[in-house]
Amino acid sequence: MSAPIRLGIAGLGTVGIGVVKIIQKHAELLSARCGCEIVISAVSARDRRKNRDADVSGYAWVDDPLELAARDDVDVFVELIGGDHGVAREAVELALKTGKDVVTANKALLAMHGQELAELAEEQGRVIRFEAAVAGGIPVIKTMTESLAGNRISRIMGVMNGTCNYILTRMESAGLPYETVFDEARRLGYLEADPQLDVGGIDAAHKLAILSSIAFGTRVAFDGVEIEGIERISIDDIHRAADMGYRIKLLGVAQMTARGLEQRMSPCLVPADSPLGQLQGGTNMVVIEADSVGQLVLRGAGAGEGPTASAVMSDIVELARKVRVPVFGQPAGSLTRAQPARTAVPAAYYLRLALLDKPGALAKVAAVLGDAGISIHRMRQYDHQGGTAPVLIVTHKTTPEAIDHAIAELPRTGVIAAEPVELRIEEVQS
Amino acid sequence: MSAPIRLGIAGLGTVGIGVVKIIQKHAELLSARCGCEIVISAVSARDRRKNRDADVSGYAWVDDPLELAARDDVDVFVELIGGDHGVAREAVELALKTGKDVVTANKALLAMHGQELAELAEEQGRVIRFEAAVAGGIPVIKTMTESLAGNRISRIMGVMNGTCNYILTRMESAGLPYETVFDEARRLGYLEADPQLDVGGIDAAHKLAILSSIAFGTRVAFDGVEIEGIERISIDDIHRAADMGYRIKLLGVAQMTARGLEQRMSPCLVPADSPLGQLQGGTNMVVIEADSVGQLVLRGAGAGEGPTASAVMSDIVELARKVRVPVFGQPAGSLTRAQPARTAVPAAYYLRLALLDKPGALAKVAAVLGDAGISIHRMRQYDHQGGTAPVLIVTHKTTPEAIDHAIAELPRTGVIAAEPVELRIEEVQS
Ligand SMILES: NC(=O)c1ccc[n+]([C@@H]2O[C@H](COP(=O)([O-])OP(=O)(O)OC[C@H]3O[C@@H](n4cnc5c(N)ncnc54)[C@H](OP(=O)(O)O)[C@@H]3O)[C@@H](O)[C@H]2O)c1
Ligand SMILES: NC(=O)c1ccc[n+]([C@@H]2O[C@H](COP(=O)([O-])OP(=O)(O)OC[C@H]3O[C@@H](n4cnc5c(N)ncnc54)[C@H](OP(=O)(O)O)[C@@H]3O)[C@@H](O)[C@H]2O)c1
Repeated sequence: MSAPIRLGIAGLGTVGIGVVKIIQKHAELLSARCGCEIVISAVSARDRRKNRDADVSGYAWVDDPLELAARDDVDVFVELIGGDHGVAREAVELALKTGKDVVTANKALLAMHGQELAELAEEQGRVIRFEAAVAGGIPVIKTMTESLAGNRISRIMGVMNGTCNYILTRMESAGLPYETVFDEARRLGYLEADPQLDVGGIDAAHKLAILSSIAFGTRVAFDGVEIEGIERISIDDIHRAADMGYRIKLLGVAQMTARGLEQRMSPCLVPADSPLGQLQGGTNMVVIEADSVGQLVLRGAGAGEGPTASAVMSDIVELARKVRVPVFGQPAGSLTRAQPARTAVPAAYYLRLALLDKPGALAKVAAVLGDAGISIHRMRQYDHQGGTAPVLIVTHKTTPEAIDHAIAELPRTGVIAAEPVELRIEEVQS
Repeated sequence: MSAPIRLGIAGLGTVGIGVVKIIQKHAELLSARCGCEIVISAVSARDRRKNRDADVSGYAWVDDPLELAARDDVDVFVELIGGDHGVAREAVELALKTGKDVVTANKALLAMHGQELAELAEEQGRVIRFEAAVAGGIPVIKTMTESLAGNRISRIMGVMNGTCNYILTRMESAGLPYETVFDEARRLGYLEADPQLDVGGIDAAHKLAILSSIAFGTRVAFDGVEIEGIERISIDDIHRAADMGYRIKLLGVAQMTARGLEQRMSPCLVPADSPLGQLQGGTNMVVIEADSVGQLVLRGAGAGEGPTASAVMSDIVELARKVRVPVFGQPAGSLTRAQPARTAVPAAYYLRLALLDKPGALAKVAAVLGDAGISIHRMRQYDHQGGTAPVLIVTHKTTPEAIDHAIAELPRTGVIAAEPVELRIEEVQS
């Protein structure tokens, strides 16, 4: 057995306490697997008197995470506080500067400052591991950084925000409107303090930006992600998509094209019987396409105490085994600056329109689409609802540009009663 | 950049040439990711004059894999010959004894001699990596050994022989009998030289035994796997299972119970709409259940040049990065000898009987099941076929023992026209 590896854990919330519990419960198993003991030297959180779900009285308590980061009896600083600035960031930087490796679950921090942190870590000869930051218990970081190291990755797709997937699948199964399910999710504690992080797609976009960096050897570029949340998805859209064999998911897609790096996080239609279409509730899925391996699909719990702590533990075990992999899979200095590209890859689109009850309304709409070079694959008109007729169109493959153009032109027809809803139908091998 | 890592590749067949191609095509990418160059010092195969799908003229040629294993200019011996004895085994042992690490795709070798080889490797301070040996391109070894190191794994399930899955799904989609599709698979080159390895479930059982070892910290115990092939699955079974919402898969299940380690590889029914049920063709899937992470599902190509070579490369990159993980995830000496246990976990069962056209036949069968404590969930009788009536029964949950007992008793009824077919219905979360 080598010398124990000594942890300082900052943050004793859902994830932090989950990690403490695993270390306490599986001490023997972990020693056998790591070849050394994993010990917790000290912990930190805001409120020392808070009742926690694990006994932390055996560890030194430090009020200030910065003090924890700088301690001599800590080899690995485990940051489980959260937030892309403030104490989490400062403590991570200080830990690296004082010679510690860092394990974190903080996607916001990595999405915003991943490059600087990776450079700092390398300068200091330290590493940062962050398996838990993307898709919770699913080992996607390790898979991309290590298992697929012999591949050129061409596309990543993922459902990576459990709360959004919960809301969308619950709307469908219970037939409830967005607002009702949103309130329910809030009551159940599924939403972040700032719900925009979830339903606005920001949290999932953070994760996508991190995956892109590893996949394409580029600097994390969160500001290159086109983001759209799920707020405008109505129960009507969900039902009508289902009628045509689709489900709506908040789907992240990143791919390298000749024009640059496309990254988008947006509600999309996927075939109801595809693996992505079948994801229920908080489950996450990542689909990776690469030159040698072909398609790889990983599915599991994307959040929650156990799954997230499991991922944090995998990083801790890695360091205990003296495994040291570059932060984003290759030296930070070799990561290129990707040209961000707006989505240009063609796809079929779903359009939901509310037409005024005027003669020739449908023909006018069809003409606008035709002028934009868009051909119609399927169209359904539903019963009038208070003077307007809902119309649903699935186009043949077309470009996002053509769709934008058509949508901009539609109001000129004088038959459009409400803002059109347009959703991409992402092609997914099933 | 550190010093190059030097490979000796023994075996230039499907997998070996796949590896050579990746190293040639992605030299730059690999150097960036590994922090060193990956070079091939020498190669070996049976026939030097054979036309190969990659140019190997730049590498030293060695006729004898043993000579290759012992070379001074080799750091990692990559064994891609195959077979559980003979030259593959001897060369791997010699490589370890002469101070090389070993990468192999050889499940038969590990299933039969994994423990001795792991002990030898540890004595020599070397490692053996074998990601490609189980489920081809799916990173299941890394996931279990590293990503789930903080978990206690409770059950593993897997469809891990692409050829069997091809045969079963092709029978269903084309409505063809087993023999026809078997011949087709042979013509397409999907079958091993000894087809029993595939259709007899042996190859898949090798893989399951390897996974069990990592999952439960036990010595590989291939002889503890209850094995049954797919030869007795008829197109009738496939159709009738489908009628009731199931698909038949050659499914491996390993779980630790109070009675010991249950390992079985056998044709099972799974819900048609579960991830396992939906697997088509050569695709593989592994489902892992563990205490913290919950359920994790991995899906991808289980064989073929690209996917298998991708897995071999992940091991090579790991060694190039100086990552050294114990062979089965913990020191070989700490692996326990599991008590092998016959399957005892209860399940529902599918029974197909051919009854003679006698009055009260069905009642007699029902009585035998009742006496064995088995209750019937669903029953269907089909039209008579030449004097016998096919009857299909799905039981409620019962024990394998009760089923065996009932099957042994059935002939006494005097109404059974043919050997009953009995298949376990494995419970799978969807
Ligand atoms: N929860 C999940 O399922 C999940 C999944 C993946 C990733 N993550 C990430 O994991 C991280 C932690 O998430 P969580 O859900 O565990 O959060 P949480 O339950 O809110 O816990 C946060 C912890 O940080 C402590 N803390 C906050 N501000 C602090 C300060 N200024 N100084 C010291 N301690 C401070 C809190 O102390 P008190 O307890 O005293 O208030 C609390 O223990 C975040 O980056 C999150 O994005 C979470
Ligand atoms: N194919 C797959 O999809 C797959 C997937 C997972 C794992 N695997 C495993 O990978 C290994 C290799 O499989 P493969 O499909 O690549 O086999 P293969 O195509 O049959 O190639 C075997 C290679 O070994 C060479 N060889 C055989 N006997 C030899 C000897 N006595 N001395 C020197 N070389 C010898 C052959 O030489 P010649 O070329 O000169 O005949 C050939 O190059 C096996 O362990 C297999 O189980 C394969």
